[in-house]
Amino acid sequence: MEARVIIVTGIPGVGKTTVLRELLKEAGKKGARLNVVNYASIMLEMAKEKVKGVGRDDLRCMPIDLQRALQMEAAERIEKMIAESPETIVDTHMIIRTNQGYWTGLPLKVLRKLRPSLFVLIEAELSEIVDRRLKDKKRKRDEVLIEEVKEEMGFSRFVAASCATLTGAPVKILKNPAGKQVEVANQLLSTIQKLRGA
Amino acid sequence: MEARVIIVTGIPGVGKTTVLRELLKEAGKKGARLNVVNYASIMLEMAKEKVKGVGRDDLRCMPIDLQRALQMEAAERIEKMIAESPETIVDTHMIIRTNQGYWTGLPLKVLRKLRPSLFVLIEAELSEIVDRRLKDKKRKRDEVLIEEVKEEMGFSRFVAASCATLTGAPVKILKNPAGKQVEVANQLLSTIQKLRGA
Amino acid sequence: MEARVIIVTGIPGVGKTTVLRELLKEAGKKGARLNVVNYASIMLEMAKEKVKGVGRDDLRCMPIDLQRALQMEAAERIEKMIAESPETIVDTHMIIRTNQGYWTGLPLKVLRKLRPSLFVLIEAELSEIVDRRLKDKKRKRDEVLIEEVKEEMGFSRFVAASCATLTGAPVKILKNPAGKQVEVANQLLSTIQKLRGA
Repeated sequence: MEARVIIVTGIPGVGKTTVLRELLKEAGKKGARLNVVNYASIMLEMAKEKVKGVGRDDLRCMPIDLQRALQMEAAERIEKMIAESPETIVDTHMIIRTNQGYWTGLPLKVLRKLRPSLFVLIEAELSEIVDRRLKDKKRKRDEVLIEEVKEEMGFSRFVAASCATLTGAPVKILKNPAGKQVEVANQLLSTIQKLRGA
Repeated sequence: MEARVIIVTGIPGVGKTTVLRELLKEAGKKGARLNVVNYASIMLEMAKEKVKGVGRDDLRCMPIDLQRALQMEAAERIEKMIAESPETIVDTHMIIRTNQGYWTGLPLKVLRKLRPSLFVLIEAELSEIVDRRLKDKKRKRDEVLIEEVKEEMGFSRFVAASCATLTGAPVKILKNPAGKQVEVANQLLSTIQKLRGA
Repeated sequence: MEARVIIVTGIPGVGKTTVLRELLKEAGKKGARLNVVNYASIMLEMAKEKVKGVGRDDLRCMPIDLQRALQMEAAERIEKMIAESPETIVDTHMIIRTNQGYWTGLPLKVLRKLRPSLFVLIEAELSEIVDRRLKDKKRKRDEVLIEEVKEEMGFSRFVAASCATLTGAPVKILKNPAGKQVEVANQLLSTIQKLRGA
């Protein structure tokens, strides 16, 4: 049986983590076996093997070339993990905002390793994303943040379209309205199951 | 003489079929030889060779993996058809809305077979597209449909940009206002003729 | 030391030329060595080697196939120039508006030659771009021009996202408000320097 890879993405504040947690619960209830791999955690794990005690924030401050090398190494590790499970969800980002600009979490080289069957873009209302981000830290004026979030959501879709063209896999846009994470998780589960023609 | 391929796309409701019909008429009047291939028809033809009596709606309900395999086989057949004519128009879609998300009609593997010289995106006013779709079936509230059409038009452009980057061929956006299909057909004909430096 | 390539793009009217002029001044003040290559000039140079006396406007009127061939030859020449400098800025376009549609300045084949480390999109307010373009020639009604500029800015971003996915390099969006070209040049310089981890 072919191992399937489902890429789940969403910009910070859309509620991706919550949806994925509910997804695992719902899958469990239905007896479905789902493996979730967090791309950033694998990158951190690999960085720690090289530099003991390195943290997530240290990674973000590294020059982008080093991050790109790590991204590629992580793709190779994930490629191996994928083979062990009939269905793997890779929890990652279409784009990462860095001080060198938007960096893609899914460049062609990574796509060639992961060979995904589906891309999922979790989206939410601008105002909800902004609210969730402001809870974290109160550093920016609302209007600036709204513009930033709008740009990130747009750029994520543009990159998703490119991923779809390169791989031939579809892009599912899932809206995650406040309080509807269980419904969204079930929608996601049903989309994944349809991949198998179930 | 090199065989040229022009990809003509448009989301349902933009009036693509009408424009292409007028294009053939206008080309005929001017003695231009144009071959039009409908991608979906080729896919259906190939499916029928495998499963007798299979219909267009059956295809749409197949798991996407099977549709993708059929898409690739159709690309190979079209590749052969292309070689027989100096200019072939491939009537297809940038994106297809499926229940597994937006699926591209022109993934890299297909682009490599078709080697297009030009991509055409036929577009229309949101309200006109919605009106044309509502005539077909009255199933959705207008606002929902407007949002859907907006998203489809956007995603089609994103995919078109990716196609342009992968192939180096330009993307012509043609607006098709109600009642102007003959003018649009002539614009398209003139764009195609310019490819030859005519 | 690896030679780095930074692609700087912007649609006509965003003030790209001014920003690049200020960038060279600011880099000079700080003793940084930056090499700037103008893609269109290289294309013109190569065309002149073939057809004596050919001008920039003649190029634009050539059938797109010839322009594409010239674009590829220029990429090969630029590839050689890049190797001679630790950092090269390639001044070019994400998209070029032609009468055959949007043509990309950075198709995959060109990206493979230039192997860029960073893409920069210089953007400006719609109204400022329109004002700058109207100063050049008064040929179009404002609303038509505003729609055109909006479409060009959008399409540039879509193509940039595709470039990011193909290469893995980030896309930096730099806003260039009227009168702030020195600040923008310094932002650009600092982004370039961060590439080296400086």
